[in-house]
Amino acid sequence: MKKYSEIRELAYLANMEIQAKGLAIYTFGNASAFDPDLGLFAIKPSGVEYGDLSPDMMVVVDLDNKTADGKLRPSSDTKTHSRLYKSFPGIGGVCHTHSSFATAWAQARKSIPVLGTTHADHLPNPVPCTADMSDEMIDGDYEDMTGRVIAETFASLRLDHLHTQMALVASHGPFTWGKSAATAVYNAVILEEIAKMALYTVQINPGHGRIPEKLIEKHFYRKHGAGAYYGQENISSAPKI
Amino acid sequence: MKKYSEIRELAYLANMEIQAKGLAIYTFGNASAFDPDLGLFAIKPSGVEYGDLSPDMMVVVDLDNKTADGKLRPSSDTKTHSRLYKSFPGIGGVCHTHSSFATAWAQARKSIPVLGTTHADHLPNPVPCTADMSDEMIDGDYEDMTGRVIAETFASLRLDHLHTQMALVASHGPFTWGKSAATAVYNAVILEEIAKMALYTVQINPGHGRIPEKLIEKHFYRKHGAGAYYGQENISSAPKI
Amino acid sequence: MKKYSEIRELAYLANMEIQAKGLAIYTFGNASAFDPDLGLFAIKPSGVEYGDLSPDMMVVVDLDNKTADGKLRPSSDTKTHSRLYKSFPGIGGVCHTHSSFATAWAQARKSIPVLGTTHADHLPNPVPCTADMSDEMIDGDYEDMTGRVIAETFASLRLDHLHTQMALVASHGPFTWGKSAATAVYNAVILEEIAKMALYTVQINPGHGRIPEKLIEKHFYRKHGAGAYYGQENISSAPKI
Amino acid sequence: MKKYSEIRELAYLANMEIQAKGLAIYTFGNASAFDPDLGLFAIKPSGVEYGDLSPDMMVVVDLDNKTADGKLRPSSDTKTHSRLYKSFPGIGGVCHTHSSFATAWAQARKSIPVLGTTHADHLPNPVPCTADMSDEMIDGDYEDMTGRVIAETFASLRLDHLHTQMALVASHGPFTWGKSAATAVYNAVILEEIAKMALYTVQINPGHGRIPEKLIEKHFYRKHGAGAYYGQENISSAPKI
Repeated sequence: MKKYSEIRELAYLANMEIQAKGLAIYTFGNASAFDPDLGLFAIKPSGVEYGDLSPDMMVVVDLDNKTADGKLRPSSDTKTHSRLYKSFPGIGGVCHTHSSFATAWAQARKSIPVLGTTHADHLPNPVPCTADMSDEMIDGDYEDMTGRVIAETFASLRLDHLHTQMALVASHGPFTWGKSAATAVYNAVILEEIAKMALYTVQINPGHGRIPEKLIEKHFYRKHGAGAYYGQENISSAPKI
Repeated sequence: MKKYSEIRELAYLANMEIQAKGLAIYTFGNASAFDPDLGLFAIKPSGVEYGDLSPDMMVVVDLDNKTADGKLRPSSDTKTHSRLYKSFPGIGGVCHTHSSFATAWAQARKSIPVLGTTHADHLPNPVPCTADMSDEMIDGDYEDMTGRVIAETFASLRLDHLHTQMALVASHGPFTWGKSAATAVYNAVILEEIAKMALYTVQINPGHGRIPEKLIEKHFYRKHGAGAYYGQENISSAPKI
Repeated sequence: MKKYSEIRELAYLANMEIQAKGLAIYTFGNASAFDPDLGLFAIKPSGVEYGDLSPDMMVVVDLDNKTADGKLRPSSDTKTHSRLYKSFPGIGGVCHTHSSFATAWAQARKSIPVLGTTHADHLPNPVPCTADMSDEMIDGDYEDMTGRVIAETFASLRLDHLHTQMALVASHGPFTWGKSAATAVYNAVILEEIAKMALYTVQINPGHGRIPEKLIEKHFYRKHGAGAYYGQENISSAPKI
Repeated sequence: MKKYSEIRELAYLANMEIQAKGLAIYTFGNASAFDPDLGLFAIKPSGVEYGDLSPDMMVVVDLDNKTADGKLRPSSDTKTHSRLYKSFPGIGGVCHTHSSFATAWAQARKSIPVLGTTHADHLPNPVPCTADMSDEMIDGDYEDMTGRVIAETFASLRLDHLHTQMALVASHGPFTWGKSAATAVYNAVILEEIAKMALYTVQINPGHGRIPEKLIEKHFYRKHGAGAYYGQENISSAPKI
């Protein structure tokens, strides 16, 4: 359908970027693009390799996880995406990868502390890792619960989901989001970089703690908000879409 | 011989994939393709570099390790392959690599615990590491014994070789298998990814243990068996052959 | 303006080399080229991706951080560059990256000890890591202070900035410099290599200390100064510009 | 001179392979090819980048380190090469790299234990690391002493230089050799692979020791000596030259 062609194209490009940036192998990972006016998102079909994808294969799904358009089964993680769109107003894309270092922090069930300005440039607090899911949650509507446990982590830590656009699901892996599908994938790349540097940092200095609050604020707010002075007024330094 | 051309082609493609995925350098590693009707398999010739291979160089060998067709010596690991075909009914391919992280776990003589859902997506228990081989086994029919020690490990741990399609041979390296030679190499790639994430995970959190049984089951069975809902009904998410 | 075309071209080439050598992703990092006769330097515009750069986009700035020519905002780290040009006479280029291993040592707030001759070939002492910046420094003219804390580290350690052409800013990352912008980037590559080997070295032998002074001197002075015998008289082994 | 064209070509190809295999950056590293009939070897010129090399730039040097032919200065490590040719009869090539993992073991001043069969396939004992050089040795004929300390290590450990074609010079890095320059570089690649796996192995299992002697012998002698059964009779599995 023509009215879905834009989110399909955006979702397709974001999924291809997952592979181009080396964040997933084979059929691992997925990205989606949300249209708030339609109340629908386009997402990668389940279990199809990146090299075999085309825009028209993206499955269009509503927020109740019903397929609105498309011949294939949507990603098995579709309910996590829809839960995040419902819980986090204002976002336009979600991305899930199995990138090595971010997944390792998730498997270690540890939030990534703010160990340097590369981290603070992008978010003003640790990358949060969720609590373990209970057996009841796993036995229940598992993929929906995966989204819920992220939203609950943000609520309990009083995190702003527009400032912190990434989370680690314990024993599972990273989920990222943003104003668009492209930004969600951009955040997945940034998270992998932060996760890699953080592992090396604690290997060099195991007793290392969080950097001073003032330095975090300085770096975060020179790139974000009203007082930002990083970048150009008419050229976005983040993804163009 | 024309009747061997299919397994030769399959073995050739699988061996080339070992190199393409960076799982072995120079002449390291080997893959074979088995035809259960013929009772024969095609395997890489010993000590030939990947770049020099062609389908007709694959050596066709029977389950008694006698060359049925081919001018070259088969892989020095041929007896390990035939032992696995004899011990593990239903498999159609075997792969052996020297990939860095999987080999490191084998050299460390440690099974890889189930530390996350990437692992549980593919197998529902640790990647088993065999016991050390005795001097008598090494002095005996060594390559056959290498296959036997894998089969014995599966027997003593009561593992299903169709659920767990990979093993680490202590002090040596990884062996993987599957319904085809392509799936065997696919499993070698997955194993290397699991092994890498597992090392990083224990570096971040050395006290980390196995994830909850419920989560392992959830992830394994959403991709495998009668209740699976991952992937498409008509598109395989694993190798096409 | 034609008189700025040379430093623009040099700055452009140096910035492109940051990306080519894998020292930064997206818009991270920056390099500048200084003309001592003009008292001006050309620097990467803020927040523009490497693939979008062209020589004419380089911003020409004076040592008071005023834009002399150019339509874009200069790098947000511009004041750090100008401070280094003012503090370190004789240098013609500055480079800042977020390369993984060097950034990890900076985040760990550790100087990199001289653990081998690869290090000693390039500098005769540890790669110094600055002290933490105080809240007042961060709240003040932050980017200028970043340059000052590097200069103060060199003063307090009595380091020669022409012998040691690199520093780690605590909790932030690496800054390098040299006779030209190309040499500054060359030094950033060397620093990343030294930082990587140093992490692996302390992982193998955690109690490792500095190598003998005599060996440091031998390697540094066979490549530098009047008695050097490395390289060719008429072919530079360092960057050609 | 025409009579030197063969060793120049062999040395050139070996040096280019150092770069192709990622064992050195910029001007780091060097390889040489020896002609025992002429008593001369061709070696990389000092401080020239790999991309700028051509066969005719290789410098032909005799075993007293006098240039027999060539316009450029030979590698600053030339005396180490000539010392190895004099100490180790039967070798036809020497290679020195700064590959990351092998250099890290050298910097850690640790021999690499035999932790698996990948190692045992290539040499039947640890990769030896030399003792530290004394200040007198460093102040003396340093590069010749570097070769001597390798030869002395082999003498004191009673190692066969044709079985063990590699060594780590403490605080410096790896040197490898072989029947040809190509084999010397091949051994440098193997050493880097062994060094990488060994670091990962001790990270997974810090208490790990040497594998059983029987397993070392099995793997080494299935590839080397009269009873070898690895490879083809008419196709070399090692470099063709």
